[in-house]
Amino acid sequence: MDAQSATLIAGGLKYIGAGLATLGMIGAGIGLGILFGNYYVGALRNPSAAKTQQTNLFIGMALTEALGIFAFVIALLILFGNPQL
Amino acid sequence: MDAQSATLIAGGLKYIGAGLATLGMIGAGIGLGILFGNYYVGALRNPSAAKTQQTNLFIGMALTEALGIFAFVIALLILFGNPQL
Amino acid sequence: MDAQSATLIAGGLKYIGAGLATLGMIGAGIGLGILFGNYYVGALRNPSAAKTQQTNLFIGMALTEALGIFAFVIALLILFGNPQL
Amino acid sequence: MDAQSATLIAGGLKYIGAGLATLGMIGAGIGLGILFGNYYVGALRNPSAAKTQQTNLFIGMALTEALGIFAFVIALLILFGNPQL
Amino acid sequence: MDAQSATLIAGGLKYIGAGLATLGMIGAGIGLGILFGNYYVGALRNPSAAKTQQTNLFIGMALTEALGIFAFVIALLILFGNPQL
Repeated sequence: MDAQSATLIAGGLKYIGAGLATLGMIGAGIGLGILFGNYYVGALRNPSAAKTQQTNLFIGMALTEALGIFAFVIALLILFGNPQL
Repeated sequence: MDAQSATLIAGGLKYIGAGLATLGMIGAGIGLGILFGNYYVGALRNPSAAKTQQTNLFIGMALTEALGIFAFVIALLILFGNPQL
Repeated sequence: MDAQSATLIAGGLKYIGAGLATLGMIGAGIGLGILFGNYYVGALRNPSAAKTQQTNLFIGMALTEALGIFAFVIALLILFGNPQL
Repeated sequence: MDAQSATLIAGGLKYIGAGLATLGMIGAGIGLGILFGNYYVGALRNPSAAKTQQTNLFIGMALTEALGIFAFVIALLILFGNPQL
Repeated sequence: MDAQSATLIAGGLKYIGAGLATLGMIGAGIGLGILFGNYYVGALRNPSAAKTQQTNLFIGMALTEALGIFAFVIALLILFGNPQL
């Protein structure tokens, strides 16, 4: 296999890597759903106290969303990190 | 393997990558279901307070949906990012 | 490997990609089940309020179903996007 | 590899794709189970109201089932879409 | 296959490894969602005691988040650890 062909095949393998990197978003998606869903249940049971946990809600949201964005960043780094492939 | 064949094989690997990228939508799908499902349970138990969490509902929905759309964007970038394959 | 063989193999890899793309529907399937299931539990506990959440039910349904349809679209793009394979 | 061998191998890869496509039905299977299961819990707790959610039950069932049928369609398209393999 | 081609193919395989490394974030994402979600439910049921568990909330959050960041670090080490690939 010559170098030009190998470059092309490596570019194809890069796409498989980028596709696999999106799997890291699965956890953040499920996690955010559980996090917000449980907040709604609690806040609708006791609406007068809902404001007291709003700060914690956004802290938890930011930390969980960050994991999904990390996976997105890895996917973009794989796709565009090496412009020669 | 000559360069023309390698281009074709790399194009095939690209499709595997795009297929794998859809797996990132699994999390957003499950998450949205849990998020909305729990909101309904809470809102139907205490309908008079349901409006107070409508803003949070749409914040949570947008953040969770975003993760699924990130995966969709990666899938489209893989499919159409390199027009030569 | 000559170009004709590579085209055939790439066409085979395309089918693996299309098959993998259906995995993105898993999340929407589970999510819709949880979403509707929880709505029924809430609506049957408090039938008089069920109508107040019907709009939110269809918003949530449309957003969750959309993720499954995104995966379906990617699968069709992989299968029929490149008519030469 | 000559063209005849490549056709045979591509036909084999096609079967892997069709097999993978059935994985898309996992979500609809789990989702329908949760959906109907929760309906029964609610309907048996409050049998007199069960009729009021029967329409929503069939809407939810149809939308969740559709995702499984999408995966079935992709599997059939992979298997019979290209009669030469 | 000569050494130059092998280097290129190894670089492609590296991307598959980096993509797989993001799967380690799935657990942290789901875990953070369950952790924060359950805290909200408890804190909104008994708001006056919520402060007593705030320290434990952040300890649990940091430990769960760390696992996702470990996977992120491994993904970056795979991507950038060997500049020759």
